[in-house]
Amino acid sequence: MSLHGTYDPQNVFAKILRGEIPGVTVWEDDQVYVFMDAFPQSEGHTLVISKTSTARNILEMDAADLAIVTAAVQRTARAIDKALSPDGLVVTQFNGTPAGQTVFHLHFHIIPRWENKAMTGHGQSCMAEPAELKALAERIRSNLS
Amino acid sequence: MSLHGTYDPQNVFAKILRGEIPGVTVWEDDQVYVFMDAFPQSEGHTLVISKTSTARNILEMDAADLAIVTAAVQRTARAIDKALSPDGLVVTQFNGTPAGQTVFHLHFHIIPRWENKAMTGHGQSCMAEPAELKALAERIRSNLS
Repeated sequence: MSLHGTYDPQNVFAKILRGEIPGVTVWEDDQVYVFMDAFPQSEGHTLVISKTSTARNILEMDAADLAIVTAAVQRTARAIDKALSPDGLVVTQFNGTPAGQTVFHLHFHIIPRWENKAMTGHGQSCMAEPAELKALAERIRSNLS
Repeated sequence: MSLHGTYDPQNVFAKILRGEIPGVTVWEDDQVYVFMDAFPQSEGHTLVISKTSTARNILEMDAADLAIVTAAVQRTARAIDKALSPDGLVVTQFNGTPAGQTVFHLHFHIIPRWENKAMTGHGQSCMAEPAELKALAERIRSNLS
C-alpha cells in the first residue's frame, strides 16, 4: 500500500475505536485514544491515535489533528517515564508498507527501552497477555499529569 | 546518558545551529532548522530540530515547541514525498542512549523508504558526499508548500 490512497474503515484501529474489537486503554478523550500495543516490542509499548481524523499517514493528517496527537504522545511518554523508569523511549510513526506500517490509521508508537535489553523487531513480537497489558496500562494511567 | 540530565551546548546540532560546523540546510525559519542527515540511512534522510528549545528529548520539550517541530516534520515529509516519491516514510524520534539517541538535542528523523530497498541501520551509515546532500536538499526545498 503506497503513501497515497483511501482510508479503509475496516482497519483494526478503526474497529477498536468503534468497539468492535477490544483494546487495552491507557487513556482517552474526545480527540485521542491511547492503548497498549497487543504485540509489544518491549514492556510498556503504547500506541496513540486520533479519534477524529481518518488520515492514513502524516501526509494526509490536518495540522491541528497532528498537534493534538503529538501532544498526547508527549503526555503519554511522560507517564511511561514515571511509571516504568525506562532508560530510553523510541517514538516512531510509520508511513506506508515499505516503512513498516501495517495498520493504515496514523499511529505513533512509544516504545520504552532499557539498557542491555533488546527490543523485539516490529511485526516480530508475540501477542501479550491481556491481563499483563491491563496492569501496565493502569500503571501508566496512574502517572498521567 | 539517561532520559534525565542537562543540555550540553557542545552537542553537534547546537554547533550546527551556531554555524560552528556546517549543515546542509533544506529550509529554516526563526523556530526550526531542517537539514540533511550527514550519515543517511536512505536517500533523502532529513532531520528536523528546534532553534529555540534546548530540550534533549520529548519529556523536556515545551508543548508549544513540540507542536512547531512536528508541523515542520509534516511540511518536510510532504516535500520529500513530492520530490523523491518514496513508497514509505519512517518518522522517528529517539530519546536516551538505549533508544538509539546519539545527539542530545531533540530531533526527528524523516527517512524515505522504497520497496525492495533496505534501510541502513541507525549509526551504521557512511558519511554522504556534501554535493549529493546539497542536490537532495535543493530538490526537497523546491517542493515545499
